[in-house]
Formats: sequence, C-alpha cells, structure tokens
Amino acid sequence: MDKKELNVAIVGATGAVGSKILEKLVARKFPAKSIKMLASKRSAGTEIVVDGQKYIVEETVPESFEGVDIAFFSAGGSISKKFASEAVKRGAVVIDNTSAFRMDEGIPLVVPEVNPHELKNHKGIIANPNCSTIQMVTALHAVKEKFGINRIIVSTYQAVSGAGAEAIHELGTQSLQFEERADIEAEILPSASASKHYPIAFNAIPQIDLFDESGYTLEELKMMNETKKIFSDDKIAVTATCVRLPVVTGHSESVYIEVDSEDVTVEAIRAAMATTTGVVVQDDPSSQSYPMPLYAEGKDEVFVGRIRKDPAHPSGFHMWIVADNLLKGAALNSVQIAEELIK
Amino acid sequence: MDKKELNVAIVGATGAVGSKILEKLVARKFPAKSIKMLASKRSAGTEIVVDGQKYIVEETVPESFEGVDIAFFSAGGSISKKFASEAVKRGAVVIDNTSAFRMDEGIPLVVPEVNPHELKNHKGIIANPNCSTIQMVTALHAVKEKFGINRIIVSTYQAVSGAGAEAIHELGTQSLQFEERADIEAEILPSASASKHYPIAFNAIPQIDLFDESGYTLEELKMMNETKKIFSDDKIAVTATCVRLPVVTGHSESVYIEVDSEDVTVEAIRAAMATTTGVVVQDDPSSQSYPMPLYAEGKDEVFVGRIRKDPAHPSGFHMWIVADNLLKGAALNSVQIAEELIK
Repeated sequence: MDKKELNVAIVGATGAVGSKILEKLVARKFPAKSIKMLASKRSAGTEIVVDGQKYIVEETVPESFEGVDIAFFSAGGSISKKFASEAVKRGAVVIDNTSAFRMDEGIPLVVPEVNPHELKNHKGIIANPNCSTIQMVTALHAVKEKFGINRIIVSTYQAVSGAGAEAIHELGTQSLQFEERADIEAEILPSASASKHYPIAFNAIPQIDLFDESGYTLEELKMMNETKKIFSDDKIAVTATCVRLPVVTGHSESVYIEVDSEDVTVEAIRAAMATTTGVVVQDDPSSQSYPMPLYAEGKDEVFVGRIRKDPAHPSGFHMWIVADNLLKGAALNSVQIAEELIK
Repeated sequence: MDKKELNVAIVGATGAVGSKILEKLVARKFPAKSIKMLASKRSAGTEIVVDGQKYIVEETVPESFEGVDIAFFSAGGSISKKFASEAVKRGAVVIDNTSAFRMDEGIPLVVPEVNPHELKNHKGIIANPNCSTIQMVTALHAVKEKFGINRIIVSTYQAVSGAGAEAIHELGTQSLQFEERADIEAEILPSASASKHYPIAFNAIPQIDLFDESGYTLEELKMMNETKKIFSDDKIAVTATCVRLPVVTGHSESVYIEVDSEDVTVEAIRAAMATTTGVVVQDDPSSQSYPMPLYAEGKDEVFVGRIRKDPAHPSGFHMWIVADNLLKGAALNSVQIAEELIK
C-alpha cells in the first residue's frame, strides 16, 4: 500500500474487539483519513466517542466498502464469510479476526512478531489468529528460532471477554447472584450456540466453543492447527486443553515445551524471549514476580514467567504466559498487521 | 485395632477441614465412643453442633491425647510436629492431614483406593496426602495398574478453600469490592506466610504455597514427590504447575499422561477408571458432560472427563479431574484411612 492516508472500516464496531480496534487505531496514530464504523442494522445509529471524536455506526452492506482501503472484520465468522469478498472486490484489504479463513490455503495467518513475511503473499484477506494462539506463539517464537521446539502441551485459563460483551455481563450478574445466594442464571457460556449453559462465576468450565467429533473443542483445535501454520512447521507436536474461568479479561496459559537440545538453561530461555519486541519476562520467584491476568488487562505486552526446567525430562520446560486477550489477542494484533502492511 | 468403639480426637477442630472430618465421622457412622474437638487456646470454648450433638472445643495440650485411640491432625504442620508424637506416646494412631511427615521414610502416605496395604507398616503416624495429589492418583490408579503410566504433566485449577476459611472469606469480600469498584484488599493469598499478597477475585495466581530454590512451589513439589511415593514408583516422571483460582471449593486438574503401550483407546481408559470405587467418569462431549468444580462441591467422588488421545503422540492422553478438595482431598480421605485401619 502506497497511500499516505487510508480509508478504514471496522465491521463489528459495537463488539468487545471492534471498539478496541478503534481505540488502538486512534492511540497509535494510524494514518486513517476516515474510519467507518459498521455493524448490524440493529446497531446502526449508535454513537461511539473516542478521544473527543464522534463515530456513528452504520449498517454493513456490500456498498459500505466502496473506497475503503483496509477493513477490519470482527463480527463473527458468518459476517466475514458474507462480506469479506465484497470488501476485497471493491479494492479493500481485509484483516479478519474471526476463524472463517484462518486455515484456508493461501490466506496468510499473521502475528507480526513471528511471521510478517507471510503478508507479502496475501490476495486480499489476511487472517488474525485466535487469541490464545497469538500470545503463545509470540512468547515462544524466539525460543523456537534459537533452540528449536518440537513439542507443546498447553492448558489455558481463559477470560470471559473472549466470548464477547454478553459473557462479561453474565459473569458480573452471576457473581452478585452468587453473593446474594440467589438462583444463578446461565445463558451464554460455555458458548452462546451450545445447547447447555453453565454458570461461570466461581466455576471453571473445560469447554470453549463447540466440540468436534475427535473429543477436542474447536478452540483447542484452533490452538493446535494455527500454531503449526504460523510457525510453518507441520512436524511440531501441539496439543491443548482450553478452560474458561471467572476472569474478566486476560488469558493465562500453562505451557510445557520440549526443545531440540538437552543443554538449554532457564536463563537462556529467558534471554531469548526478552529479545522479542512486546514480550516481557516477569519471572522472579524470590520476589513473587510472575504474570497474572488482573495485571495484564489493558496492556499491549505478552508477559511470561514461572519458567523452569522439568526435573524429569532433560529438554522439558514449563512457563506461564499471560496477555490481554482483547488487545494482543485480537485488536492490537489486527492493527499491527495493518501497520506492517503500510510500512 | 480391635476395639469396637473408639475415642477420637480432631486437632484443628475449627478449621475448614477439621469441621468436615467431624461431619464425615458422624455421617458415615464411624464407631466413635467419644469425639474430642481440639484447637488453639483462642478457640477453646467454641461450640460446634453436628447432627443435633454439641461439641465443645478444648485447647490442645499433650494430656489431651490420654485415652485417645485415633487422632486426626489438621491444624498446620507446626502443630503436627509439636503434638503428633505426644499423641503416639499415649497410644493414639495419628492420621495427619499436613505435610509435616508425608515424605518421611517409614511414614505411610495413604489413599485407601490406591495403597491401603501401606497401612500395615505404620508406626503410629499415617500421612494423608496433599489434596491435589489425592484426586489425581485416585483417578489414575486403575489406568496405571492396567496399562502402566510413565509420565504425568499436570496443570491445576485450585479453589481458595484449600488455603483455609480465611481465604474463602477473602474471595467473597474481594468479589464484592470488585463489583462495587472499591479498592481490593489482599491479605491471605497466595499464601498467608508469603511477603506479597495479590487479589484472587477475577484473577488467577500461579503460586500455591511458597517457592523452593528450584523455581517450583512447594505445592508443585508435593504433587511431584507424593505421587511417586503413593504409586511406589520412583521412575514415573511427574511435573506440575499449580494455580489458584476464584473458585470456592473444588480443585480441577488438566492432566496429561503417557501410558506404556501405544494401542490403548479412550474407551479402555474410561472403562479402567470406572472400576475404581469413588471414581465417576463423566465424559460425553455430545451432551456437554464433563466435571466442573461448582458441581463437585459437597460430593465424595472424584470426577473425570475430557478424556482424549493426543493426535501428536501415540501413547498420550489428556483428561480433566475434579473433586471436592475438602472432602476426598482432605477430610474424607482421612476418615477412610481410619475406616481401613479398623476393618
């Protein structure tokens, strides 16, 4: 892209991620001539104010994308499938935050710190990976480059904001119902489209998204498949367990890796990680320093701590990776992709 | 023990576990002639009523154990170290729920479903394992017997009640402070004896108990070492990450195992687990059936679900193990040890 100032559109403008994309574009002074806020017909007319500037939400129709240079999509896979090609047809580059195209051949799946070179191959659509995948590959990238990683076993501790604004509201309501000993109402989690719903307040639900016939959830399969694609490594063994927690924002991950060599130290892992821009090693047991989701909320960085060697395996290491799932896990990564595109 | 009716003492009578031991003794009709409730001087005189029967708490002194046949200890390691030998000297068998003697040579560390035979070797003190260890070894025992397990990698999701009644109170207070946007006060977790305290409400803290110089926490080392001792298997590779969650009661565990053979199926693992008394396999993705801590609270059983094969490793399996940490994780297991002793 060689324009100095760009026309931008955000589809899903009223959602948890859409509003963060707008905030990040403004805060990072993205060279936008105009920002069009698009959503469903129901939300049309809604006013959004960021940094003193007012934005009026419009209904998404194919013609919305006339003259648009970059369109961010974050309104669910079905909306992306319906409108992304309309945007591309009109000359826009689509940065899609849903799972609609991520695993499609020829669609770059990009984390700018890890595989920015994939961007040059795009044909109009660029996919933004799943939130829990992004923070993990960002943290592991330098370790993989330097020492090789042949195996990842991850258990996640995911915040409700990953399921959208309604899930945040549900956790708040249930927490009060719980304290007042009232009946707990569950209508959203573990997934709005699932048949059964369970309370998330003071609970842990080992289901994120729907189940596949393999017994894994779609969220787990996203982590397993997207990691291989982003790392361009079909041979790396990745397996995941994804769990939803009563945390508002901030995904945490207990990650176990096996590196290619047996003489790697914890210090070497820490040093490698710290070379990645945006990765903060917060790892000092003696001062109880380690990442926690409550402190990662609102931050751009990926935080890593609890790095330690498995005494029972010569090349095994544990770590604890935390990031704001709405920022590096979604909105920030999308905006970084746009920044990389116009470099 | 060949007496028909026994004199029982509970040290730590006013604690989260002590009160559950009393409830379980009464509910399971343990043949107790008398139950003496012992605690610190400060709690002496407190009245506890269970099933219409009133118990008055007395201060623990060496003479408290005169005539006692079985003494349950659950008042912290220092109290066990101070009084367990006094109880044994007076002829009592001590069932100790603290970590004071667990790894001592010659002290049986017992989960009745797994290694009841170790009880015959006791010399007065029997150790009750750590809560997160008990539920894991109970669930895995039959799989290990039938197929062999050579490796365990576990990430825990632990409830605050494991840190005692004060931690339960702290979670409740912080949840309200959070909803009212008041300042959050943290004084107990991650560990009352740690220098720093962090909020647990709407957070996840990757520290349970204090750190050892290895970078592991004592809770993680307990799981690693106690599992080997209970399974009488020095060669099994066990490594753990322990995390505290805003859950009142019910520990969950994301457990990854490698079995000795490559042709084991998920169905065979489920079938093996179901043969252990007290283990409930709750595992049907098609009906969203899996264990959750909110539903395990108050239950005696260990629940297992999300059992699935690692597509990247021929003998690797994931599972999700949940139990009430105050019952099977503590009070119930202690009472079961006593029942086994008088069989």
